[in-house]
Amino acid sequence: MAFKFLLLVGLFFVVDGVIAQESVKQSRQESPWAWACRTGRGCVKVAKDSPVEEGDNLDNPTLAGCKLTCNGESTLWPKPRSIISLSKTLISFHPTDIRISRISAPTPKVKSLTNEAIQVLRSVIRKSIPNTQRGRNQTTKETQRPQINIQISIVSGDDRLEMTTDESYNLHVETIFATAATPNSPRSTTSVSITATSFFGARHGIETLSQIMAWDDTLGTMIMLTDVNISDSPAFVHRGLLVDTSRNYVSVPVIKKIIDAMSYDKLNVFHWHLTDTHSFPFVSTREPRLSLYGAYSPAKVYRPEDIKELVHYATVRGVKIVPEFDAPAHVGSGWEWGERAGMGQLALCVNKEPWTTYCVEPPCGILNPVNDNIYSVLSNIYQDMRDLFVSDIFHMGGDEVNFACWNETTEIIDWLKTQGRTEKSKEDFLYLWTYFQNRSLAEVDKAYDNKQPIVLWTSGLTEDGHADKYLDKNRYIIQIWTTGTDESIAQLYRQGFKLIMSNYDAWYFDCGYGQWVGDGPNNWCAPYIGWQKVYENSPRKLIVNFNETFNSRQILGGEAAIWSEQVDSTTIEGKLWPRSSALAERLWTDPDTTWRVAEHRFNHHRERLVQRGIQADALQPEWCHHNDGYCFL
Amino acid sequence: MAFKFLLLVGLFFVVDGVIAQESVKQSRQESPWAWACRTGRGCVKVAKDSPVEEGDNLDNPTLAGCKLTCNGESTLWPKPRSIISLSKTLISFHPTDIRISRISAPTPKVKSLTNEAIQVLRSVIRKSIPNTQRGRNQTTKETQRPQINIQISIVSGDDRLEMTTDESYNLHVETIFATAATPNSPRSTTSVSITATSFFGARHGIETLSQIMAWDDTLGTMIMLTDVNISDSPAFVHRGLLVDTSRNYVSVPVIKKIIDAMSYDKLNVFHWHLTDTHSFPFVSTREPRLSLYGAYSPAKVYRPEDIKELVHYATVRGVKIVPEFDAPAHVGSGWEWGERAGMGQLALCVNKEPWTTYCVEPPCGILNPVNDNIYSVLSNIYQDMRDLFVSDIFHMGGDEVNFACWNETTEIIDWLKTQGRTEKSKEDFLYLWTYFQNRSLAEVDKAYDNKQPIVLWTSGLTEDGHADKYLDKNRYIIQIWTTGTDESIAQLYRQGFKLIMSNYDAWYFDCGYGQWVGDGPNNWCAPYIGWQKVYENSPRKLIVNFNETFNSRQILGGEAAIWSEQVDSTTIEGKLWPRSSALAERLWTDPDTTWRVAEHRFNHHRERLVQRGIQADALQPEWCHHNDGYCFL
Repeated sequence: MAFKFLLLVGLFFVVDGVIAQESVKQSRQESPWAWACRTGRGCVKVAKDSPVEEGDNLDNPTLAGCKLTCNGESTLWPKPRSIISLSKTLISFHPTDIRISRISAPTPKVKSLTNEAIQVLRSVIRKSIPNTQRGRNQTTKETQRPQINIQISIVSGDDRLEMTTDESYNLHVETIFATAATPNSPRSTTSVSITATSFFGARHGIETLSQIMAWDDTLGTMIMLTDVNISDSPAFVHRGLLVDTSRNYVSVPVIKKIIDAMSYDKLNVFHWHLTDTHSFPFVSTREPRLSLYGAYSPAKVYRPEDIKELVHYATVRGVKIVPEFDAPAHVGSGWEWGERAGMGQLALCVNKEPWTTYCVEPPCGILNPVNDNIYSVLSNIYQDMRDLFVSDIFHMGGDEVNFACWNETTEIIDWLKTQGRTEKSKEDFLYLWTYFQNRSLAEVDKAYDNKQPIVLWTSGLTEDGHADKYLDKNRYIIQIWTTGTDESIAQLYRQGFKLIMSNYDAWYFDCGYGQWVGDGPNNWCAPYIGWQKVYENSPRKLIVNFNETFNSRQILGGEAAIWSEQVDSTTIEGKLWPRSSALAERLWTDPDTTWRVAEHRFNHHRERLVQRGIQADALQPEWCHHNDGYCFL
Repeated sequence: MAFKFLLLVGLFFVVDGVIAQESVKQSRQESPWAWACRTGRGCVKVAKDSPVEEGDNLDNPTLAGCKLTCNGESTLWPKPRSIISLSKTLISFHPTDIRISRISAPTPKVKSLTNEAIQVLRSVIRKSIPNTQRGRNQTTKETQRPQINIQISIVSGDDRLEMTTDESYNLHVETIFATAATPNSPRSTTSVSITATSFFGARHGIETLSQIMAWDDTLGTMIMLTDVNISDSPAFVHRGLLVDTSRNYVSVPVIKKIIDAMSYDKLNVFHWHLTDTHSFPFVSTREPRLSLYGAYSPAKVYRPEDIKELVHYATVRGVKIVPEFDAPAHVGSGWEWGERAGMGQLALCVNKEPWTTYCVEPPCGILNPVNDNIYSVLSNIYQDMRDLFVSDIFHMGGDEVNFACWNETTEIIDWLKTQGRTEKSKEDFLYLWTYFQNRSLAEVDKAYDNKQPIVLWTSGLTEDGHADKYLDKNRYIIQIWTTGTDESIAQLYRQGFKLIMSNYDAWYFDCGYGQWVGDGPNNWCAPYIGWQKVYENSPRKLIVNFNETFNSRQILGGEAAIWSEQVDSTTIEGKLWPRSSALAERLWTDPDTTWRVAEHRFNHHRERLVQRGIQADALQPEWCHHNDGYCFL
């Protein structure tokens, strides 16, 4: 088979003399190096003038060609759960020769989404070609160039990504070569067929297709595998990233880039921690004073049109945006106008000092649950979010409630007395908190006009094994942010709660920088978490480690979180990637193998992210990527 | 004085009705917030409709205006060593009304450099104005707008930055206001005078001038201090960053951005660690095979024209590029062609395994000092570097020489025998190393045709107090990369060596990420070094802590290093900044005060870096920048 490829590339270059000459001229002098696929290592740089060593295969001697064909998983990331076959042969092609021969979809909306996903594919291919090479004229006659025909077939009319959406897909690629025996068909034809239940599965198939293609810098052309058969579906339904846009603002273009990168990783949930004590960038149509008072500046907001645009942008890329409105704590900026408006104190202890007494970090603030007016404001926020977001779950936050402020507020204490509670005990404040949670939940339900699943963080309501005392396991999904060995995980699991794992010791990407209050060498959750640890954190294994039987219906998946006290638009991409890709393979594939097996593919995927414009951090010297298996302890 | 400013802004806005209306329209609704300069805190957000609290000053109630006037150092970074006076009054101006009334310079070259530095100033001002506001029409008549006239006076013809260059400057700003009593002069005039011995001092003055200006987002205009008197010069002559472009390649545009950011910080040395074992991106005209074999790809190189362009770009921005050619270790890629060319083995143990035996990280490699041919190759490299770089010092590296490889090489052992050395002892290999160092130094001296100062890293040659046995203190400057309390610092200091401090425990910016060989949570020099520790690392105090008298002639300054095993073009800016700014104030000002005093100015400077297009990492929630003094432990 390799012979056919070499023949074809040879033909392409003989016919295409101008391009071949240009390439030589550009690189000035031919490189002395080739790449061998070396048994037990991977793709390794070897001198062209050296004899081929035993165990080395030089069928595809370019870096890009070797990487695509050397391993059983090619350069696919995340690794598909079932690879039926991947050829070791390559074909070179020109992007303009990709044709969509047929899209079979049950509704115009699904067809339109699919067409948009194809445009994304074309743009991704364009990005992978270096600037200097883009727009070069094709001198080979079109009728002689390899042709790629894509067929996509989708069964269901689902155009909203939900937890029940079938994300599986099949990708079939087959190439019929032109030979001397077929003089009337001088061009080879590659047929690509993607079949899926839903658009979201088909989109994943398109992403996988983009990953069996690569720009070959040595040949100066795009190349792809000639024959592929993949059947794929995710291990977990909820594969997310949490982005905090309140501690620091993240611009809309950067959020789009985050969604781009998520789509390359088949991550499907953008958990948007929209508001917090620090700022309120969400422009509420019904309560405009919240962002007027609470945004860092008039420019640092998310307007309804921004959010609508992002929701559609994300849908095309297989991503659901889940809004979080965190309460009753993590509230402050934006809520200062209550008394001015004759509505009483909406939030208490806003910016109160010393902050160490009243909250986890400056500035403090907590809602006033006994002021009836907050529920109408909350109702308006929920309705605005319902209007803008398309999500089957809603996140109500609920973490880090500190009772000190409520305890010092006369209005609160007086109300507790009306409830026959005079002890100011922990129980009393848990009662108040539950009262708030139930009333605000009622407003959410009214806004959505149905009872959709609610996500809450692990908190004082869920610890000590008493979650089921306060929360209904049929309404609430619990997002875990304790360590992965915290007993509360087992308790919640045994009580039957559905869980989303974000244990901070593996999946908090803001850990490991210096302190931002004080000058300690480490912030609270240091050290920085390397990709290897991110990769090894299997939600399945976490459960098994508690001697529990793993039930995939209860463990929905996981999220990595980037809390933004020490990050904003400037560096967020490099703090999220490539580590989010490690998360992605864990949640999509959940392999039994360790990071060591994945390392070469991971290095390559990082390079691909960079090619596609993502500012992903570097993992190793590039030398390691050129010499698989030589950078280890 | 404040009254005058308010009057002037009032006048500007009454006259300029269109702009005023546009601003209101853009921000939709007026913000409820103003900024007070609060005693004991700094600039703090306050509600416009609240009574003014005791200790609050609202003379300049915008964020930008408050920051410029609230503190004794305004927003200057690094803090000048002598601020004679800074006004608390502001004037608004339009960038087109900045005129250069006179440049007095002794040579056309210096005049030309100064004009280029002025262009940089104009571009920096342009960058600080948000996109949406740029290019808006000025509706006020030019004859009524405040005018800014700049005079620059330079005495010396120095157009090369050297260790002896006088970098001092004086900046004098004075504003004459238009009043009702001067109906014929309806515009105010601000006169700026920068005087300096050298162009490099004048350039620093221009940078300081840019920092008494700011874009005021609330007013929708540029503002600046009306009256300023500063006399400034650096504490240390050598204020640098080391960038490693061998482990991973850093693109030329990104190097330019690094130089931009250095210029905003008055850092003056870009120490270019050009080559290493991993790759050889330096295109040597005389030895083209080095990069042909050693570059990661034909695109990942620095051509002579790239380097010439960068050297000029840096000079205009007050930065000297110091090349390092590290030898005899840290050599490998690019040296593989010796035997093919009939020149014998130029480098030994290239890529040899297990790497742990032969070097500090994969891949291994070390020069073959007993092969005479390496000295002609080195001579060619040195001559190429001499042709391209403009530097009064040359860095020869010399770190981390591992004797295991030499010890196993017959050719080496045989040569040692000819020297009467048969023991294979540490002494024997130190002898060989010194032989190499002396021969290569002779080639450097021949290339430069003079004996310029040579920098070497602390190494086996400098430890155990025996540096003076192998090295001449009048030829060699030692760059320290041990910890700041390592006894070898005191030994070298007592022996009279000049030192450049880069103690890794404070100034290695690559520390604190996960391992890249293996999966440990920390790389070798973890944890990540927060800006506070960077700031506190005073070379002066390091010496005093050894009970030595500080001699500024011996301590030239310092450098922060970003070794690039785990960083490349994508994230290098955020790993360097804002921490490099902390280094910069330490080396320029060397204040006796701690980071706490600098924190608010530092936060503001980080925002300014971002405004100017530098992807500097975030330090704190923006809330802290809006509420000085409320984010502390």
